[in-house]
Amino acid sequence: MEGMVAAAEVAADLAGAVIRPLFRSALLVEAKGDASPVTEADRAAERAIRDHLARTLPDHGVIGEEYGPDRPDAEWVWVLDPIDGTRAFITGRPLFGTLIGLFHRGRPVLGLIDQPATGERWIGVEGRPTAFRGPLGGMVGCRPCPDVAQAELSCTSPDMFPPGQDEGFQALRTAARRTTWGGDCYAYGLMALGLVDIVVEAAMKPWDWGALVPVLEGAGGRVTDHAGRPLTLESPGDVLAVGDPALLPACIALLSA
Amino acid sequence: MEGMVAAAEVAADLAGAVIRPLFRSALLVEAKGDASPVTEADRAAERAIRDHLARTLPDHGVIGEEYGPDRPDAEWVWVLDPIDGTRAFITGRPLFGTLIGLFHRGRPVLGLIDQPATGERWIGVEGRPTAFRGPLGGMVGCRPCPDVAQAELSCTSPDMFPPGQDEGFQALRTAARRTTWGGDCYAYGLMALGLVDIVVEAAMKPWDWGALVPVLEGAGGRVTDHAGRPLTLESPGDVLAVGDPALLPACIALLSA
Repeated sequence: MEGMVAAAEVAADLAGAVIRPLFRSALLVEAKGDASPVTEADRAAERAIRDHLARTLPDHGVIGEEYGPDRPDAEWVWVLDPIDGTRAFITGRPLFGTLIGLFHRGRPVLGLIDQPATGERWIGVEGRPTAFRGPLGGMVGCRPCPDVAQAELSCTSPDMFPPGQDEGFQALRTAARRTTWGGDCYAYGLMALGLVDIVVEAAMKPWDWGALVPVLEGAGGRVTDHAGRPLTLESPGDVLAVGDPALLPACIALLSA
Repeated sequence: MEGMVAAAEVAADLAGAVIRPLFRSALLVEAKGDASPVTEADRAAERAIRDHLARTLPDHGVIGEEYGPDRPDAEWVWVLDPIDGTRAFITGRPLFGTLIGLFHRGRPVLGLIDQPATGERWIGVEGRPTAFRGPLGGMVGCRPCPDVAQAELSCTSPDMFPPGQDEGFQALRTAARRTTWGGDCYAYGLMALGLVDIVVEAAMKPWDWGALVPVLEGAGGRVTDHAGRPLTLESPGDVLAVGDPALLPACIALLSA
């Protein structure tokens, strides 16, 4: 596993080096919301990650947002989202992240959340405590919060939920103490630092959630679908993350409202 | 004016020194969403700012979120929001800011947006180009964007708008290219860097918007109420900010839908 962690760290370094020069660049300002410069950064960063993985772990499979699947049936499969939080990136917010996850026979076993702009990085490995480093402070460890009414809920956008899911989402967020919007993968990182209690999102791809599972589980949290089941590569990608597993039954009940 | 700019800068430094140690602190993690540690940081930071202003500019008035008005009828009146973005602060997001504004006979003439966690600072003075410094890059200057359909819209929360205003808000955000959520004062700073085109919010207090006006106008943008009128200390605080003044008529028409 050490070789895989090292490969993920180097890959994230390489992606960050590609991404940082474009953040808040004149190119992005001139694009006025047109996503093409971001797509370019996304693709270049994914190539950098794929090249490094192919060199160091040539028998592994890769599924990336930009370049699709390459041997998705391998024993070990990487899932890559070079820029998670495209809107944040486009509008100059430093909270977008690079997500690098590794599945072993369909189970997420390694996850890295890297924040190229803030310099923060979370590394989760199945069965180990999550590691975190960065210049803004914070200590790894989800906090106890067994009561939904005390919980800080986070969600990237109210537009994520189609009509059939929106009622449940509204029921859960109304029951929570407070909702904070925006954040993308960063919200999950903050949960691993004990600052957010519930994140609920929908229609995420494996490269959006694969890296988050080992990070949160290594901090004491849980990541499931909206019914409390483990996420799989075949899931529709409706994600419920809780810092305190005791929150799960109430969250699931409210989401099914 | 130089003395006032210097006073605002020192005051922001003092506030940041009070605020930073609490950001992501164990105290905040343990408070589990209870705002009291933030209130404490807010109050201590406002005291630091008020003490400095009282020492250096003793004949000026002050209106602060935490300690209320002190000589609000003075010729020069400071408006203070030590932690704008309480939810961001509570959940560990580095986008909360310290806002220091100065009104001269009711007109905002000086504004400072300081980001204690990211180390960024915008300084706007009536009639001058806005200044910006910080480690994340970006150049001052709102970008041209005359068409709402091309505009990046930003708003802190969909819950800001009461029923009578929500229809107009939904009309405007549906017409815009994309909506990014969260951000508080940071979204206005990003507009001054040409990365956001429209910010629309409601029920803001003078300490929420006073500092933003000189920053944005010195970058080429405009800040008005939802009908395009200048904001005053007596306004209900419904704020419409545009990077390109050519956006104003269409935004106003959509908001009145």
